[in-house]
Amino acid sequence: FTSKLPNIGTTIFTVMSALANKHNAINLSQGFPNYPSDQKLIDLVNMAMNNGHNQYAPMAGNLELRIAIANKYERLYQNTYHPEKEITVTAGATQAIYCVISAFVRPNDEVIVFKPAYDCYEPAIEVNGGKVIPIQLSAPDYKVDWTEVASKTSSKTKMILINSPHNPSGTIWSQEDMLELQKITHNTDIIVLSDEVYEHIVFDNEQHQSACLFSDLKQRSFITASFGKTFHNTGWKIGYTCGPEALMKEFRKVHQFNVFSVHHPSQKGIADYMQDETTYLGLNQFFQQKRDLFLSLIKDSIFKFTPSKGTYFQVLDYSEITDENDVNFAKRLTKEFGIASIPLSVFNLNQKDDKVLRFCFAKTDETLVKAAEILNNI
Amino acid sequence: FTSKLPNIGTTIFTVMSALANKHNAINLSQGFPNYPSDQKLIDLVNMAMNNGHNQYAPMAGNLELRIAIANKYERLYQNTYHPEKEITVTAGATQAIYCVISAFVRPNDEVIVFKPAYDCYEPAIEVNGGKVIPIQLSAPDYKVDWTEVASKTSSKTKMILINSPHNPSGTIWSQEDMLELQKITHNTDIIVLSDEVYEHIVFDNEQHQSACLFSDLKQRSFITASFGKTFHNTGWKIGYTCGPEALMKEFRKVHQFNVFSVHHPSQKGIADYMQDETTYLGLNQFFQQKRDLFLSLIKDSIFKFTPSKGTYFQVLDYSEITDENDVNFAKRLTKEFGIASIPLSVFNLNQKDDKVLRFCFAKTDETLVKAAEILNNI
Ligand SMILES: CSCCC(=O)C(=O)O
Ligand SMILES: CSCCC(=O)C(=O)O
Repeated sequence: FTSKLPNIGTTIFTVMSALANKHNAINLSQGFPNYPSDQKLIDLVNMAMNNGHNQYAPMAGNLELRIAIANKYERLYQNTYHPEKEITVTAGATQAIYCVISAFVRPNDEVIVFKPAYDCYEPAIEVNGGKVIPIQLSAPDYKVDWTEVASKTSSKTKMILINSPHNPSGTIWSQEDMLELQKITHNTDIIVLSDEVYEHIVFDNEQHQSACLFSDLKQRSFITASFGKTFHNTGWKIGYTCGPEALMKEFRKVHQFNVFSVHHPSQKGIADYMQDETTYLGLNQFFQQKRDLFLSLIKDSIFKFTPSKGTYFQVLDYSEITDENDVNFAKRLTKEFGIASIPLSVFNLNQKDDKVLRFCFAKTDETLVKAAEILNNI
Repeated sequence: FTSKLPNIGTTIFTVMSALANKHNAINLSQGFPNYPSDQKLIDLVNMAMNNGHNQYAPMAGNLELRIAIANKYERLYQNTYHPEKEITVTAGATQAIYCVISAFVRPNDEVIVFKPAYDCYEPAIEVNGGKVIPIQLSAPDYKVDWTEVASKTSSKTKMILINSPHNPSGTIWSQEDMLELQKITHNTDIIVLSDEVYEHIVFDNEQHQSACLFSDLKQRSFITASFGKTFHNTGWKIGYTCGPEALMKEFRKVHQFNVFSVHHPSQKGIADYMQDETTYLGLNQFFQQKRDLFLSLIKDSIFKFTPSKGTYFQVLDYSEITDENDVNFAKRLTKEFGIASIPLSVFNLNQKDDKVLRFCFAKTDETLVKAAEILNNI
């Protein structure tokens, strides 16, 4: 056979986590916490198993969870989704993203992707025969040039993928950015896929600009979200997507035959857990403390940085240290200095090399202190 | 927008389970047990959560689980798969099937599907632009005419989907069937997708004819399997696929961007549980007792049947009762008699109507007794 996906290798997250394990390095590469999940949530999932929630959940998700999600949108954005028709629980946000793309992108359809981009977007477009139209953003501020976006948008554009707070750069989009996007897509058939998995991790009292806040955008958008990021259980792989009914109907056509349904006891446990809204309202503060600690510890290091505005990632500019490209430098940091990070060039167009590495600060304070010691001695 | 999947509606399993709930009917439609899962397994998953297995599993799955799976193949078929290179844990068998198809089927590729067929196969082929080449089998024995298969196989054939024990008919393929398939695919590039989710549910001392037992077949086959079926937790959505390294490499290209990884604590719990092989070796007997009870209870009913040879489904011929088509009769049985089943025609070519309904007997003895009372009074 000839490979259908000849250009796809192993995701950088697998590569760097494996390298970190091999060299026993502090792993700030792949984004996951190294502190325990809330015992209360674990106990609720255990209770769900013991109460018999072990058979197929409804295809669109446990209804109590969908209602809890709808309530969250009401609470945070004064704006909601219909739990039965407009919300579907997924096997993580990645599976939601894959199915949104599969449900709409046909061979030769164009999809606009802002680079650097989380690495699941493009393979999903490619496997469906779509054409990626990349727009490169650059360090340190990763600002969008909206005239460029307008010039790349045409009747061939099927979808635009956006992601704020932005992985890997840690930047966020402003209300103006969202209004520009709304203007460009107004009166078109373009579908917007708004990856908002870090919606609860926004700093310095900034507001998360959810696509649901812009009424014209909302009616053409899927929002994808992740309980793994929110409740510190990335390994549970529970996420969801919200979108207008007509779009959600198409999404479910693929979802029902991709996974049919999602781990039921976790859904029930999370639904119970979310009855207390402080479980997600306190997150911004929790992560801001992590970011502030990490940055205060490395403020005198040789790395340059703009503080992350959202996500649990901080990018550090190492151009004062070496001319080495970021992949080599990230590998050398892991092997020789015992700290693993993610090189950004693998998410960039033509591997454009901004000489920045991404570090995950969703770690215990102890780990952050150790990591900073290493970074301060480079 | 125009729908990419205009012909895809809601899966019959959702339709019938919803109808059963609405009419408070005994639900023998969708295939899932109504008795509790083994407490020991639940406790092991809880222990896995409490021991911190809550972050991303490796993309290919928890290694202990992959080793347990490899050992199972060794134990049952004296024939195994390499845990690191040839086994991938998936979000249920459905997700494995979807990704096998997505990794190989390109627009206009032909895929042979035996009808009646579990309803996720064709949408997955369609969403990837492939062409379904159906081969209709018929009640009561659902025998394959291998000359027909040979005549439908050509250089355009990318893949052949097989499923033994067979859902929905409850038939199994013989060694001769597998040898015929091996002969037809010999020296071709055809990939075989062998859906073996009911491998542990085979009756009357028959042997499950796994694709891994036929060396030429094995090197072109993916086997897909399900812990939901095996350990009575359909709602956990944990399955796996095995296949030769070169094929598995392509599979993982899609899998890593479709879901990345799978519910970690369940994987760890199942790995621990499988250390005791009696957890899966006793299943044939467990389900044979269910089948025998159910059939002994309805032997004097007006339904005609050949005993199921595998799966936890029994098809019943109702042609002595009415000329009504099976969809209408299944709905009427649910509404008027309080028992839900699955009409087979929805899985058939041109909705060919054999006047048979499928009943799931993975139910408590008490439920089976109540169901039989209803069936005996029709
Ligand atoms: C699926 S592994 C990637 C985890 C993550 O979101 C990240 O590190 O960016
Ligand atoms: C995913 S719902 C279908 C369950 C099942 O395997 C069946 O009933 O055939």
